[in-house]
Amino acid sequence: MLTNAGSHLEQMFTQLVFVFQIDEEVAKLLELKVKLGGDEGKHQFVLKTAKGTRDYNPKQMAIREKVFNTIISCFKRHGAETIDTPVFELKETLTGKYGEDSKLIYDLKDQGGELLSLRYDLTVPFARYLAMNKITNIKRYHIAKVYRRDNPAMTRGRYREFYQCDFDIAGQYDAMIPDAECLRIVHEILSELDLGDFRIKVNDRRILDGMFAVCGVPDDKFRTICSTVDKLDKMPWEEVKKEMVNEKGLSEEAADQIGEYVSMQGGKDLAERLLQDQKMSQSKQACAGLSDIKLLFSYLELFKVTDKVVFDLSLARGLDYYTGIIYEAVLTQAGVALVCTDAQNGAEESVSVGSVAGGGRYDGLVGMFDPKGRKVPCVGVSIGIERIFSIMEQKAEASAEKVRTTEVQIMVASAQKNLLEERLKLVSELWNAGIKADISRADLIDEIRRRTSEV
Amino acid sequence: MLTNAGSHLEQMFTQLVFVFQIDEEVAKLLELKVKLGGDEGKHQFVLKTAKGTRDYNPKQMAIREKVFNTIISCFKRHGAETIDTPVFELKETLTGKYGEDSKLIYDLKDQGGELLSLRYDLTVPFARYLAMNKITNIKRYHIAKVYRRDNPAMTRGRYREFYQCDFDIAGQYDAMIPDAECLRIVHEILSELDLGDFRIKVNDRRILDGMFAVCGVPDDKFRTICSTVDKLDKMPWEEVKKEMVNEKGLSEEAADQIGEYVSMQGGKDLAERLLQDQKMSQSKQACAGLSDIKLLFSYLELFKVTDKVVFDLSLARGLDYYTGIIYEAVLTQAGVALVCTDAQNGAEESVSVGSVAGGGRYDGLVGMFDPKGRKVPCVGVSIGIERIFSIMEQKAEASAEKVRTTEVQIMVASAQKNLLEERLKLVSELWNAGIKADISRADLIDEIRRRTSEV
Repeated sequence: MLTNAGSHLEQMFTQLVFVFQIDEEVAKLLELKVKLGGDEGKHQFVLKTAKGTRDYNPKQMAIREKVFNTIISCFKRHGAETIDTPVFELKETLTGKYGEDSKLIYDLKDQGGELLSLRYDLTVPFARYLAMNKITNIKRYHIAKVYRRDNPAMTRGRYREFYQCDFDIAGQYDAMIPDAECLRIVHEILSELDLGDFRIKVNDRRILDGMFAVCGVPDDKFRTICSTVDKLDKMPWEEVKKEMVNEKGLSEEAADQIGEYVSMQGGKDLAERLLQDQKMSQSKQACAGLSDIKLLFSYLELFKVTDKVVFDLSLARGLDYYTGIIYEAVLTQAGVALVCTDAQNGAEESVSVGSVAGGGRYDGLVGMFDPKGRKVPCVGVSIGIERIFSIMEQKAEASAEKVRTTEVQIMVASAQKNLLEERLKLVSELWNAGIKADISRADLIDEIRRRTSEV
Repeated sequence: MLTNAGSHLEQMFTQLVFVFQIDEEVAKLLELKVKLGGDEGKHQFVLKTAKGTRDYNPKQMAIREKVFNTIISCFKRHGAETIDTPVFELKETLTGKYGEDSKLIYDLKDQGGELLSLRYDLTVPFARYLAMNKITNIKRYHIAKVYRRDNPAMTRGRYREFYQCDFDIAGQYDAMIPDAECLRIVHEILSELDLGDFRIKVNDRRILDGMFAVCGVPDDKFRTICSTVDKLDKMPWEEVKKEMVNEKGLSEEAADQIGEYVSMQGGKDLAERLLQDQKMSQSKQACAGLSDIKLLFSYLELFKVTDKVVFDLSLARGLDYYTGIIYEAVLTQAGVALVCTDAQNGAEESVSVGSVAGGGRYDGLVGMFDPKGRKVPCVGVSIGIERIFSIMEQKAEASAEKVRTTEVQIMVASAQKNLLEERLKLVSELWNAGIKADISRADLIDEIRRRTSEV
């Protein structure tokens, strides 16, 4: 661990003792003290972070940095640029973009001036940015926090403040090429992060809408029925059907027909079969979607990622702005589940982490911001990084390997007093030489005496 | 620019044309179109970012990344860990920490549940974090955005949403050692960023308070007179005096005595002289501060940074929580000033960028959060990164060197149609090999035709 920084330094080293373990040992004693000390005295106020949010400690930050590096490398390998936007937008910028989820938006207090809201995702700010700067072609990534007043399930890696890692391609391209690249990116990232086996479900908004039409769903119920279908990953079909019929007033017959379709999974072959399907083929929309799914799979074959991709008619996704292909990645390995501690009885249960990436095509969103309504076709993917962090943290906990939170190469300390000046001179020379170095808090004897009396 | 990725790939290359310039040329044409097009049609809504905030475009992000890398390397060289805290805190966490500036805090709307505010700096959340986790010793950095409802002067690099880069040392140390390290860090960062000459002003809250006492300022006026002294970098002494006497009701005599002291600048020698000063030496507080300044300068000599540091009795700094040494770095080179365009008449004027780093000791802040009032001594520095960005951006504008916003090594394109599959296969192999690659949007002829018709 000792870096040789020249013979002058070496000479000085002989007068000094280099200690790495003292900090750790003192930390252990201090921890013990905290445990023994209990919680006497009364809190004058609540000492906590806001509901649904958390601090990241140095260990969590070290893991976060590693994950970000993997993801950013992938985005850069695909030639993406990056941008950043403010954490809040004009309230009206977010209005009418998220359907039923709009109620989860955080508003700022009216303190005079503009009405503002915290961003709900990175996609709407991106569309606003494109329209505002009249950009018609860009491949960009954006990693930043977004805000949703949801009921957090923090043990499952769900928070009110959480990171999104978005990659989007805006501009006119040959059909399905950027869409295929987004799926390739999900494949690369999930493989490199080594989270265990995964599957990427693919569907198309036009197939869903076409399916609803041919099953006899009234036009004005498409969006709400779509939201119900979206619950299929959390609820069994019987309950989903009940919601459609009892709450949303759909006929039993229509619901059963939908039930038949949404149980279908496959690949290119399924798309081909559905193009021949007597009912489905009546919908032009559905046919357009199915043809694109076919084309997409042919590109995915070239990209060598078909092993993980499945065409799944039950995939819906809630957001209003999708217009074409949609997708979602889930971890499938039984072993990869978050351990969730039940606060009431201390029991631990394993819960599935759900989706770790999702996205789709949204060709209409930029046009909503352009004063002339000029459209810019876009497709993108968002990596669900918080759930990935939670998994990585649990992995780190379980592993014997210690996570390093500093990069210190040399710790400068002395056994006796009166060498303070030498220590400062030495560490200064190390810094000059670009070596990562730190000084202990006092001379060693003092340090031990003081720290143990602290305990 | 062409990376050789094996003879198989080489063979394929011969069928393909590699183009780097087309995107640039099309971009120029599109830019021209925008200029010619003007702004016909009416905006249905305001297409802008919130007041005092801005987007970062890819070029700005490339500069930002470079600056962050320099700063983070320095923090890591000093053995710092990093943490992150939520963008909002419970409102009561921020209450009573910022004195007169508290009115600039952004509150969130009460949508049921806790009352929340956006963080105003990173120091108070850090103190809350230490108290909450019972941490008594840490050297950490934190880079994140903070929020102030100030009147922004964006052309001078002042925003309502802006980054802070904080480095702090918490814990019991020999006096002035961590304080000296903070100044050394400012010196390292400003030197490495190559922003031109700079000066670091140093003072101590206890010297200011002692000075106020011996000059006859009533105890209850210390804070408000301190705020007025803080304006000396923007206002001449005569105006500052007027505010003290006319607005704050100080006697003319007391003001004149303050005026004498705050004109003093020097080094260790000045501290020694003031320790002998008949009046100043009457204040125990001032003497404690002056002795520490002496000690500080002896460490700064060992750290070889005294060339830039000046003991300046006019330095005040507004924040309430400082208890000991305070400091602020300013750029002094005449050439380094931001060009500020006057929107009214289009005239450009050069304005000074003001402080680019600042900080101090705040030994009481953590105790304000601890239920038992246990204190954790802290000292830290905040790098004023937005102003540094603004300077770097103007430098980049002025320089002929082009800022690269992607790291693409190979652009895959073909001259004619029908090679789409080959292009996709090729780019896929490049990605597999870890090479940064991108495909052009269509075949070249199509691309040129389509893009020029776009214009």
